[in-house]
Order: sequence, then C-alpha cells, then structure tokens
Amino acid sequence: MASMATYFSKYPTPAQPFPNSFKTHLQSRTQIAFPQLSAPIRAHRKAPLRRISCSLIEPDGGKLVDLVIPEGETRERKRREAMGYPRIKLSRIDLEWVHVLSEGWASPLGGFMREAEFLQTLHFNSLRLADGSMVNMSVPIVLAIDDAQKRAIGDRRRVTLVDSKNKPVAILSDIEIYNHNKEERIARTWGTTAPGLPYVEEAITNAGNWLIGGDLEVIEPIKYNDGLDQYRLSPAELREEFSRRNADAVFAFQLRNPVHNGHALLMTDTRMRLLQMGYKNPILLLHPLGGYTKADDVPLSWRMRQHEKVLEDGVLDPETTVVAIFPSPMHYAGPTEVQWHAKSRINAGANFYIVGRDPAGMGHPNEKRDLYDANHGKMVLTMAPGLEKLNILPFKVAAYDKQQKKMEFFDPSRKDDFLFISGTKMRTLARNQENPPDGFMCPSGWKVLVEYYDSLAPPAGSRLREAVPA
Amino acid sequence: MASMATYFSKYPTPAQPFPNSFKTHLQSRTQIAFPQLSAPIRAHRKAPLRRISCSLIEPDGGKLVDLVIPEGETRERKRREAMGYPRIKLSRIDLEWVHVLSEGWASPLGGFMREAEFLQTLHFNSLRLADGSMVNMSVPIVLAIDDAQKRAIGDRRRVTLVDSKNKPVAILSDIEIYNHNKEERIARTWGTTAPGLPYVEEAITNAGNWLIGGDLEVIEPIKYNDGLDQYRLSPAELREEFSRRNADAVFAFQLRNPVHNGHALLMTDTRMRLLQMGYKNPILLLHPLGGYTKADDVPLSWRMRQHEKVLEDGVLDPETTVVAIFPSPMHYAGPTEVQWHAKSRINAGANFYIVGRDPAGMGHPNEKRDLYDANHGKMVLTMAPGLEKLNILPFKVAAYDKQQKKMEFFDPSRKDDFLFISGTKMRTLARNQENPPDGFMCPSGWKVLVEYYDSLAPPAGSRLREAVPA
Repeated sequence: MASMATYFSKYPTPAQPFPNSFKTHLQSRTQIAFPQLSAPIRAHRKAPLRRISCSLIEPDGGKLVDLVIPEGETRERKRREAMGYPRIKLSRIDLEWVHVLSEGWASPLGGFMREAEFLQTLHFNSLRLADGSMVNMSVPIVLAIDDAQKRAIGDRRRVTLVDSKNKPVAILSDIEIYNHNKEERIARTWGTTAPGLPYVEEAITNAGNWLIGGDLEVIEPIKYNDGLDQYRLSPAELREEFSRRNADAVFAFQLRNPVHNGHALLMTDTRMRLLQMGYKNPILLLHPLGGYTKADDVPLSWRMRQHEKVLEDGVLDPETTVVAIFPSPMHYAGPTEVQWHAKSRINAGANFYIVGRDPAGMGHPNEKRDLYDANHGKMVLTMAPGLEKLNILPFKVAAYDKQQKKMEFFDPSRKDDFLFISGTKMRTLARNQENPPDGFMCPSGWKVLVEYYDSLAPPAGSRLREAVPA
Repeated sequence: MASMATYFSKYPTPAQPFPNSFKTHLQSRTQIAFPQLSAPIRAHRKAPLRRISCSLIEPDGGKLVDLVIPEGETRERKRREAMGYPRIKLSRIDLEWVHVLSEGWASPLGGFMREAEFLQTLHFNSLRLADGSMVNMSVPIVLAIDDAQKRAIGDRRRVTLVDSKNKPVAILSDIEIYNHNKEERIARTWGTTAPGLPYVEEAITNAGNWLIGGDLEVIEPIKYNDGLDQYRLSPAELREEFSRRNADAVFAFQLRNPVHNGHALLMTDTRMRLLQMGYKNPILLLHPLGGYTKADDVPLSWRMRQHEKVLEDGVLDPETTVVAIFPSPMHYAGPTEVQWHAKSRINAGANFYIVGRDPAGMGHPNEKRDLYDANHGKMVLTMAPGLEKLNILPFKVAAYDKQQKKMEFFDPSRKDDFLFISGTKMRTLARNQENPPDGFMCPSGWKVLVEYYDSLAPPAGSRLREAVPA
C-alpha cells in the first residue's frame, strides 16, 4: 500500500479538487477501507433489490427508490425531451438534494415534496403511505422558485432542472407549485427563527417565494468530479457491499468532524457489544456527510483524508468497516435532523444507529447557549414515527484518560483522571499547530488537520488563544 | 317554554356571572337544546365506560381518562394529604387545562406532560402508546414553574396545585421537572415566533423557565360558578347523552364565534348528508370553546346567550342538537390546534368533525396576511396521525344570497348574487348597532350581539367605519 503521506506531500493544497490520479490511488486503498465494488454491481444499478440479502433491514416503503433513468435509448429520449421544458437552475444544495432523491436515501419519496408531503414533514416529521403505514421524513426536501420562474412555467406540467452550466440534470413531472412560507418552514424545522442559521442563510432566506414539487427523473447519475465520487456509494451499492460481506448487522456512524480515538473506541466497542448480542458479523458504516456544511466545519476533502489516515493507522478494522460519503446537505436542525440522518441510513441497510450528545446541534445563533438540549436528539430519535425498526445505540461518553494516556469511556468514579477535548478545542489546537495529548488521535490524522488549518493561512499574529485545560 | 327575551330583559349586563336562577332556567330549556342529565349519570362519573353505547367511536387509548378522585373517604384523605406538599398556584389557563385533563378530553394523557410527551407533541403532534399505536396530541399541555418554585420543590416527588385562593385543586405525583424552552415551544407550536400571539403573551412569555409534568389527581370536579357550569359536560356525560338519544353518528362543530344562518345551513345540510349515507340518527354536538380566548373575541357568556337564541328560534333542531361547552383554552395555532379540537371531540364520542376555512387561525401578529394558509388546517387534519378513525367533513362555503335573501351555499355560476360577510364585518355591524341583511342571523341572536357591544360602551364618536360592501 502506498503511503498517504507521500501522496499529500505532492498536493499540499488539497482544498482543490483531487486530481484523477488520486481516484486510482483511493481505489487501490479501498481494498482496506472500502473494497472496490465489482463491475457487475456498478453495471446493474437499476435492479439492486433482487440481489440484496434478505438479512438486511427493509428500506422505507419496502422498495428502494431509484430515480435515475436507465442508460440507453430511454435516457437519450428523455435528454432530448428535457430540452423542451421550462428550465429551473439548481443551486449546489438543490443539486445535492436531487442526488439524495435520485438514489433513494429518502425512499419512498419520489421527487421534491408536494404540499401534502411538505405539511406532513413540518407537522409530523413523517409521511403516511397508501397502505396506512408511516415512514419517517423530518426535513423538507423542497425546491424553491421565484415569481418570474413561476410565471415562465405557467400551466406547463413539466420542468427541466439544469445545473450551473445550464446542462439538464432532471425532469420534474406532474408538478405542483405552492406557497413557500419561509417563516413557518424555518420555525417548524429548527424550532427558532433567529437569524444566523447556516442552512437558512445559505438556502432559504434568498430563495423564491414558491415551492415546486413533483416526480423526479434524473437523466444520469449525479457526479461532482472532485476525486471523491467513488466514495459516494448509493444505498443500493451499500446494500450490495453489506451483502457481499455477509453482514448480519450494520451499524451506522454519521459524522461531519474528524475522527479521534474516542470515536474509534466507541465504534470498536459497539461491534463488541453486537457480537455479544449474538451477531456474527457486524459491519460499521463510517458515513461522513458530504453535502453542504457551514463555513467553520472542516471541508469534506480534508475530512476524507483524515478518515483515510485513521483507517490506515489501524485504529479501525478495515475488514469490518465501510467508508462512504452521505450526499445530503446539513441542516444543523438537531432533533429534527437526526431523524433524517437515521432514516436515510435505514435505506442504506443499517439496522443500528449510533447517536451522540446533541446530534446535528450547534450553538444558538444569537444567544449564549446550545440551540438544542443535548439529550433531545436521542430522545426524539427513540420515539420517532417510522424509526421503530431501527435500533438506536446511545453514544457512550469517551474522554482522554490522563492515567492511561488514551481515550477511554468516562468513569465518573475517577472523574479527575479525565480530560474532555471538545470539537472546538480540537480545532483550536490544530489551528495553532499544537499537539493534543498522546493517544487522542493518530499522529497522521492529526497532521491532516494541522495542514488544513495551515492551508487557510491566517494572518500573522492571529494565534488563537483558547487552550486545552490542563 | 319561557321566552329567553323575557329573561334577558331582566339581566341586561350578562358580562357578570349568571345568577343561580339562570341555571334552573337553562336546565328547563335543556329539554330542547340539551336534555338535563338524569341523576344516575351524574352520580356514576367514575364508571362511564360500562354504560357507553358500543356504537360510539372509541376514545383515544381505548378508555376515557377520569382523573377526579371519587367522592367519599378517598377524596377526603387526598384533600388532607394535599395540605402537606409544596404548592403551585394555578393561573386561570392552568386551571382550564386541569379541567381538560381531569375529564379525559386529552385521553389517554393522565396529567401535565413530562418531557417525553412534550417532545412527541412538538415534533410529531402525536403520542405513541405502550402497544405501539399512535394517538393525536398536537398542543403541549404543560405547567410552567419558576426558579423559586423549583427550588421550593427540591427533591419532593409530589406537589399540590392550588387555585387563586390557595385552595387545593389537584395533586401532581411522580413529577418530572425539565427545561421550558419557550422559543422552541412557540416556534414548533405556532410556526412563528413573532411577538403578539395571544396565548403566548397571556400564558408563556411571563411563565417560568421550567415545566413540571406528572400524574394528576383532581380533588373534586372543576366548577367556575358562572352560571354556565351545567353546560360544561364531560366527555363521559356527552357520551351518555349520545347513547341515550341512540345516536349512530355524532358530528361536532367547534366554534368560538356567534352562530349565523350560514353555520346553521351547514349543520342542517351535514345532517342531511349523513342521513343520505345511511345513518338513522345523526346528532350535532354544537360545541363552543369555553376557555381562554383573545380580548376581541365575543366572551363565552354572550356567545352562549346568542346560541340559545338561535336554538330557540328553531334555526337548529333541538331534537338532534346537543349544546355544550368545550373547556379548553384557545391557542390560535391554526393547523396544529385544529387537530386538538378534533381529537378531543373523538373522546367526547364524535366520529364526524366539520372543518372550515382557516380553522383556529388569525391574522399574522405583525404582517398584513393571515398567519396560516386557509387550506392547511383541513389538509393537516386529514393527514394527522391518530385521527384516521375520525371522518373529516370539509366546510361548504355559505354566503348571503341577495336574490333569495338568505344564507345559501355559494354557487360560483352566479357569484354576483352572493355577499360574503366576514366575522370582522359582522362584529363591526353589531358594534355600530347596524343590522345585517335579512336572513343573515335570527333577529333575537343579532340583538344579543348588539347588546354585547353596547355593554362595552365605546366613547362617543368612536363609530367604526368599516361597512358591509353593497
């Protein structure tokens, strides 16, 4: 296996898209972190269900949604058709939602929400299916248009969604246009209307006053050409991989931060617990979120490098770990959003979900407190309609054990031995090119973080003052 | 039957509590509007289920909750016990919620919400029961306490709830105290945090920063001694009445405004439709809301007089109509609240619910628009978890037909014949002592409204300018 360090020395500014050579490199590495998918799997994306192991959890609605038009004549016909419909230009976040919908993460949702779905999401965090059963659906997956676009659509029944270069991406059919009450959407999704919510400022405040829902047909699989597409496995591909590995339990770990040894301890411990429960081959889905994140989060490309190092270092066992990118944008909507994070992983085959303290939370944008109660995410998740079939695994708190000089589950009987290093503190250390205590994170993973903050090149003298408490 | 007009001439300022003589009078009138309950029914409130007709809809959770301690030794023992616990003084709205809970309108809820129930209400508008089934529960029924009260309670497990005169009303046991995040509660309940929401200003803004939940035992039935208590029938009493009348369908009409002939037309028409559907004896539950309402709504005592006139006038058939007061306070929370209005009527035995345009809605407190989309209430109601067993009857729009000189269902093919008279317009006319068009409301009912606004005695020269469009 090639040394990743060697690789990084060649590309000191990886905020740029990864060159193609990296793709090959990563593919060879996936023999450890994520074995390369065999050719037949990639070639048969349209019929994944027939080959999914019956031991995996059933997707929501019983059938994994796949909205990508099959390659061949149909696709070319649709591509031509798409030229004739009114056009809606997609933002980057819109495109990420097209991606999410196209692969069935939101199964059984078959397109951007119509009003009845939007209302059910806002009021019930769930959708009722035709057979009367409920599936979870906690965040609105909607597409906004403005007055001019609405006028241009007129009474047409179909529109074409195009990317930033005007290339047709998808067709939305049997459309429904309804009022985009931003205040109500924000209040019911975030539980606040305080200015400064990252997703709201990025995707809602300046969006149009109408929402357009309909049935989505995506012309070809969504690709970002950033050197990371091979990590963007669809739910069908993940199910194939879990089946290939004969997984009898899949436990998902959602993250948008670098992995430290406390996380690794938790994941290793979870696998042990599952083995003790009688499962023979529990597989970890290490599933970093790959869509929109707020400006002060570590960007995806750097996080993926850091995760690579952690796996390379042997902190996690590559034989029982699948690393893939979850394409959803991030809402930072706490208890509402954690349901989406869990529900989408059911569709990818996970029947266990690890939930931490304050999942998808953040500080209140203009009060000195956390936006959400740290326990609400876990509580809501265990009570959410449509998630009954998912096993929720509460996060055990790990901290740095100064006696053992490693991350260990917190033991209140000897609490003075433990040091809590928050994400904020971790970032502050890395920014200041300081080292965390030995055993907090593998050194090569830490180096990636230091390199990332170094690449931001802060002006001289801006050294951050916050220090790790002794 | 005594003339109500005669009665009213004796009591020209009914904003005062009704004298006891009125109670007797109304009881004799209930031979028409609401037959007086027989003594055995009132005496056996603790065991209502055994005598409820099996044809009535099942209460939520299968059993109607009754939290009133049985009369006798137990009650006296509890009353003495209550003297020994820390005390929480109830506001008028708190007391209304104690009333609501005590009679099982919120069945199967057995007391003020603990945190798990509160979160389910905020996120899912429903509660999951032990058997996995869901019941609707869309508005938080919670009790706020402040820091000093929390300190005074300490680690005690029970508290006594007392009225404004310090008289013990109820015991709350196995208590749980948790954070009252007002911003989140308001945002998720109303879909806005705009200042000026009536219930928020009345009951939340200045409330304590903690919520206290627990199991409620109410020492004796809640009474207001305002001359209207005999109209405050519990769900068990209503079920008894519907059974006594051999109702095979009960359709509920929630209201907080005077009844005009358009409402009457709708209710009469609904009964016709139910007969056409094959029901033999559909009974109307005309169910004015009796708890907190905002300052510019017509007060309960005046509304009840107006409803009396309407029944006396024969606009509605007393043989097939039950008039009773729904003791809940009003949230003005639109699509969220209409679910509560419907769910509570299931518990009272109604299997049909009439829903109008913009139910429980109001103007946005600081924007020139309605707070809620006028169609959302109906849409949300038809999709709400736990309300599947309830038949939703959408309100047909009635307006004043200038040709026929009466209220008639709106016919778009001759729309110029119709005049829409909004609640605001109706109030403006009554305030100005003007008459609506003939046939809009029975004259005796209209007179009550004029008397009410007259009793407010606006300063001279304050005649309102808004007029009915010709």
